[in-house]
Amino acid sequence: MAGNTFGKLFAVTTFGESHGPAIGCVVDGCPPGLPLAAEDFRHDLERRATGRTRHTSARREADEVEILSGVYEGLTTGTPIALLVRNTDARSRDYDRIAAQFRPGHADYTYWQKYGIRDPRGGGRASARETTMRVAAGTIARKWLAQRHGVAVRGWLSQLGDVVPAGFDADVIEDNPFFWPHAPQVPELEAYMDALRKSGDSVGARVDVVATSLPPGWGEPVYGKLDGELAGALMSINAVKGVEIGDGFASVAQRGSAHRDPIAPEGFASNHAGGVLGGISTGQPLRCSVAFKPTSSLRLPVDSVDTDGQPVEVVTTGRHDPCVGIRAVPICEAMVALVLMDQALRHRAQCGDVGDVDPRIPARKP
Amino acid sequence: MAGNTFGKLFAVTTFGESHGPAIGCVVDGCPPGLPLAAEDFRHDLERRATGRTRHTSARREADEVEILSGVYEGLTTGTPIALLVRNTDARSRDYDRIAAQFRPGHADYTYWQKYGIRDPRGGGRASARETTMRVAAGTIARKWLAQRHGVAVRGWLSQLGDVVPAGFDADVIEDNPFFWPHAPQVPELEAYMDALRKSGDSVGARVDVVATSLPPGWGEPVYGKLDGELAGALMSINAVKGVEIGDGFASVAQRGSAHRDPIAPEGFASNHAGGVLGGISTGQPLRCSVAFKPTSSLRLPVDSVDTDGQPVEVVTTGRHDPCVGIRAVPICEAMVALVLMDQALRHRAQCGDVGDVDPRIPARKP
Amino acid sequence: MAGNTFGKLFAVTTFGESHGPAIGCVVDGCPPGLPLAAEDFRHDLERRATGRTRHTSARREADEVEILSGVYEGLTTGTPIALLVRNTDARSRDYDRIAAQFRPGHADYTYWQKYGIRDPRGGGRASARETTMRVAAGTIARKWLAQRHGVAVRGWLSQLGDVVPAGFDADVIEDNPFFWPHAPQVPELEAYMDALRKSGDSVGARVDVVATSLPPGWGEPVYGKLDGELAGALMSINAVKGVEIGDGFASVAQRGSAHRDPIAPEGFASNHAGGVLGGISTGQPLRCSVAFKPTSSLRLPVDSVDTDGQPVEVVTTGRHDPCVGIRAVPICEAMVALVLMDQALRHRAQCGDVGDVDPRIPARKP
Amino acid sequence: MAGNTFGKLFAVTTFGESHGPAIGCVVDGCPPGLPLAAEDFRHDLERRATGRTRHTSARREADEVEILSGVYEGLTTGTPIALLVRNTDARSRDYDRIAAQFRPGHADYTYWQKYGIRDPRGGGRASARETTMRVAAGTIARKWLAQRHGVAVRGWLSQLGDVVPAGFDADVIEDNPFFWPHAPQVPELEAYMDALRKSGDSVGARVDVVATSLPPGWGEPVYGKLDGELAGALMSINAVKGVEIGDGFASVAQRGSAHRDPIAPEGFASNHAGGVLGGISTGQPLRCSVAFKPTSSLRLPVDSVDTDGQPVEVVTTGRHDPCVGIRAVPICEAMVALVLMDQALRHRAQCGDVGDVDPRIPARKP
Repeated sequence: MAGNTFGKLFAVTTFGESHGPAIGCVVDGCPPGLPLAAEDFRHDLERRATGRTRHTSARREADEVEILSGVYEGLTTGTPIALLVRNTDARSRDYDRIAAQFRPGHADYTYWQKYGIRDPRGGGRASARETTMRVAAGTIARKWLAQRHGVAVRGWLSQLGDVVPAGFDADVIEDNPFFWPHAPQVPELEAYMDALRKSGDSVGARVDVVATSLPPGWGEPVYGKLDGELAGALMSINAVKGVEIGDGFASVAQRGSAHRDPIAPEGFASNHAGGVLGGISTGQPLRCSVAFKPTSSLRLPVDSVDTDGQPVEVVTTGRHDPCVGIRAVPICEAMVALVLMDQALRHRAQCGDVGDVDPRIPARKP
Repeated sequence: MAGNTFGKLFAVTTFGESHGPAIGCVVDGCPPGLPLAAEDFRHDLERRATGRTRHTSARREADEVEILSGVYEGLTTGTPIALLVRNTDARSRDYDRIAAQFRPGHADYTYWQKYGIRDPRGGGRASARETTMRVAAGTIARKWLAQRHGVAVRGWLSQLGDVVPAGFDADVIEDNPFFWPHAPQVPELEAYMDALRKSGDSVGARVDVVATSLPPGWGEPVYGKLDGELAGALMSINAVKGVEIGDGFASVAQRGSAHRDPIAPEGFASNHAGGVLGGISTGQPLRCSVAFKPTSSLRLPVDSVDTDGQPVEVVTTGRHDPCVGIRAVPICEAMVALVLMDQALRHRAQCGDVGDVDPRIPARKP
Repeated sequence: MAGNTFGKLFAVTTFGESHGPAIGCVVDGCPPGLPLAAEDFRHDLERRATGRTRHTSARREADEVEILSGVYEGLTTGTPIALLVRNTDARSRDYDRIAAQFRPGHADYTYWQKYGIRDPRGGGRASARETTMRVAAGTIARKWLAQRHGVAVRGWLSQLGDVVPAGFDADVIEDNPFFWPHAPQVPELEAYMDALRKSGDSVGARVDVVATSLPPGWGEPVYGKLDGELAGALMSINAVKGVEIGDGFASVAQRGSAHRDPIAPEGFASNHAGGVLGGISTGQPLRCSVAFKPTSSLRLPVDSVDTDGQPVEVVTTGRHDPCVGIRAVPICEAMVALVLMDQALRHRAQCGDVGDVDPRIPARKP
Repeated sequence: MAGNTFGKLFAVTTFGESHGPAIGCVVDGCPPGLPLAAEDFRHDLERRATGRTRHTSARREADEVEILSGVYEGLTTGTPIALLVRNTDARSRDYDRIAAQFRPGHADYTYWQKYGIRDPRGGGRASARETTMRVAAGTIARKWLAQRHGVAVRGWLSQLGDVVPAGFDADVIEDNPFFWPHAPQVPELEAYMDALRKSGDSVGARVDVVATSLPPGWGEPVYGKLDGELAGALMSINAVKGVEIGDGFASVAQRGSAHRDPIAPEGFASNHAGGVLGGISTGQPLRCSVAFKPTSSLRLPVDSVDTDGQPVEVVTTGRHDPCVGIRAVPICEAMVALVLMDQALRHRAQCGDVGDVDPRIPARKP
């Protein structure tokens, strides 16, 4: 498949262009019997949506999810769940000018090189609008993970440009438009973003995600490692340039005696590993950190070429996020949830009867 | 598949435990007609091997590759290429003591939790010995990429603990045991490693990899993004805790006006993107950076539990690398090559006739 | 994925229940630049549709295809093509009675056993309505195969109950409601079907499909054999109980000296093989034959049990086909086209440069 | 992957040419804790082997399986199980003459067309020798299926040329070299085969396979149907030209009232379906029938061309089976077992908790 399906057993296939008639997805492999309704998608999609505050793009999509299949009398049936969201606020005229130009830092040039053709309206398939369906599919995964295993996936902004949180309070993250874990800094961030928007420029961000209550044993060595798949999933989000698990790049300067997490009968004494050893979950919180580049859609002009190879000056006037990382928090959470859901099913497939088969296998809890 | 196959079209399936009879791999999907002989594997495997200098593990494996299939009269035939390497220097007695203990920072505990059983000898399947076959398979990919597209993949150590290169000379990388790009620092590194080894501790490292002469157009949006698959591939290497593409985490504090790479008729003016936009290669050099944690196999004791959940003090006395990142350079190169090879075939499958089908598709070179 | 995606590179994911809001599919991996419009689907869907003659189910669906994505200015873009068809003539009340009963010969019982839940309206996901999207996706494959390689895929009814064609004229197949290759027999078939319908019973059928102008070389030994994938694809159609390639079961009683097809400089002298040797196309016409069982939805009562395991007498009163094999002709054609399309891309991926790489590989045409 | 891997979760990758150094396979995804030893493979491989009676090819391979990985202290560990069999009785000189000729009815011509190169020795990868590893991998599947679910897979010859069994006694199948279910006919078959061998010709055969004690619920609608995957698996065996499930092609002339299997509280009243409805197992015995063509390797001359396209007369003098269908019995059984094993794991992945999640799902047994 040409890259539009995510997951091996809980498989999400997304489709749709930014300014086409609709976006949607098909979720195949969902266990039957999970309660699911259109309202379930509202909360996460609202968190991801543009147009809710002045700090994100002004595009205001209704994002009403229609469930087309796979649910009967409020329960999933085990058949594919198709979700559809009509595009309602596409303003394609914004893109007329750039149809024959390549915007630096965008996929315009590479789609052109790959396919020989591209839909220039709103970035087409390369638009962040595609991530709507990641969040929608992630909602199903989160419901199952929570109901079946008590797993919770939680993200926040851990850096905005060069600003880092001066404290951490999980309870305030959802109460401010920045998913910021330290409330007193919010006015500072508001001012920062207002100035940025006025300047016509953009800035990068860092998002942290933690998943808790994972059972140990999820993840497939060698190439299906839990951390490997997380890295692949998170790096597949638009604008991501780096991924860390646990201590990440800080590990480079660490000593092994400091990095390894001692084990006591009551559990691990620290979590430098970030909840994964040998590609398999330890049962500790799973910790990821993700770098988002600053968006390239700016009012500030930049040199480029057109489709004839002639030099042009590109100015982007559509509605764009000055910091795409902010809205990316629920997207990162969704991708983590999708990886976990898929690995949970894969683990059950191969190891669902560990302990039952042969008396020589001892009980697993140390 | 339970995680032991890498790639969709150029598919590498590896097998083998550190102290089992052999390790090996099956490479399926290789284009026919590629010259291939057992000698081709020697160079890269030698670069990855332990026991060549005092700075790596003392285990000395012959690493003689036997080609079991898929090559006829010196050319690949398009059928699966099976490679076999017998294990010759396994000293399993080193591991008797730890068979019933969980080494902190190792996969011991998680394999036990997942499978209810594990081969404790030398880390079993979780051993870095598995990466031998990544390098071997990567050799085939590198040959094809070089012959067919002129692509070269080159890596080096860009940080050892807290030491960073004071200069960069590509020509010296292969002339020192650290893959270090600045020759004058080599004595310093020798002393650093000697002291480390004496201390019984270990340290992390950072590896950079660059691939050059890629054509634009490789990579599959959305979930098959070139950078996404690179991140997944590199994070699947033992001990990796972080991956960056292009400017990576430095992008977080950058402005969009600085990050985006202007385009001129003669090409891109900079390469903050690291050779990928929208998940597709731009034709610029592909830049990755990888964080390796310090190995956890230390002579220094650490608290842990045994398989009965009782507290124990673990001391690892086998032969181990004080810095696994050093030998990881050819492994990282191999994983990059495997991703590129697979994407090259996938691109040819879908877009092999771009430009031929419809006159409305203009020529692709800007 | 839980069985709702067909194909490795030209991947079709279908969704939807018979009486749900809609059915649809996502076609991922289509080469860019193929002209495609909603009208393209009309012809094949009309051939498959019910309600056109008295010999098929009376359900009359508009089957208007909406293209939701993947097409820009009339050309495919290489991104996923999503197709949507709203269900308009679902009469779910027909099924109220059987919601708690298992219809013998249907998937009712097995879905219940597998999922613990099922959508009983019109057979839910197990309805032949799903095949609408196979035909739609097949239309895209047929367009590309015809345009790019001149391949044509053509089917007909080769047996209806115990009636076999008394002659063969390809030109009349599309001119009668039975896809029957011998026009003089059509009145006989009309009478046969009228009597059958009156009796309340149903009958089986055999469908033959031939694909012409295939290049030699398509198909992947060993498990991806062209004939193996055709068999899997055709057997995946509802009600199929047997598949033959070439001489099929007649080969059992043949001698090798009669079965093998001699080769002359101008080509093969016969085609017992049906166009495939060693799983790879020979370039001769590809010949398949498919057995359809008689549908089990009858007015005639039959013993069964309900969901409490109590005995019941089941009478099916919905609108059903007395011979599902008739409408299956375009479905079989579609599945053959999907297999060929996928294999064409897979072949191009691995062998797209055969002949270019090494001078030791001679030209391929004998 | 280029067609050398079978299965999605219990994934078998085979490699090796008929006259290369070795053949082998990697079985990935096997549940941990299954007892496994090299001796386990002996029985089924012996049943498949040539050279045991005068009615099969005279090639006599030791077929000693070496387990290279994935087993520790007699139990599978969940890591890939690699199996290796060295080729010991390859007589490549037999094939010198035909290296530049295409044997009619063989894969010679199509491999040449596809790859531009082929290993002509003994048919290379297209040799039936590859099926050794299907049988070996099938042995693992059969062990797990039997131990975990009590499933037994049993095959026999149900037609040899135009001879059909005059009775059926399951107990005699393994007691004669033809896997024939009616002992009194064995002398007749001996004479039949002796005459055939003397004539230099070959004949086709039909193999029936039944699997018993399957639980209901295995199989994935729509494209992963149990019968669809069985058809694909069986048609992937060398020389197979047709596959039937249940009543197969006999269904064509049946009435629906006769074909559908009534259900009573104590179970199904008949089994025309062959144990599958809607692609999912019913719990009844699974019934398949497979057509094998007569082998094309004959001493009798036949017209063909050489690699320069010049006419030649081909005579095959290597050691060949006059009826490949005889030895195919254990191969068919193996493919059925591999399909069942894979589907068992896939079912557990998605539906492993059916009945646990929501009280609205009633108990499943009718």
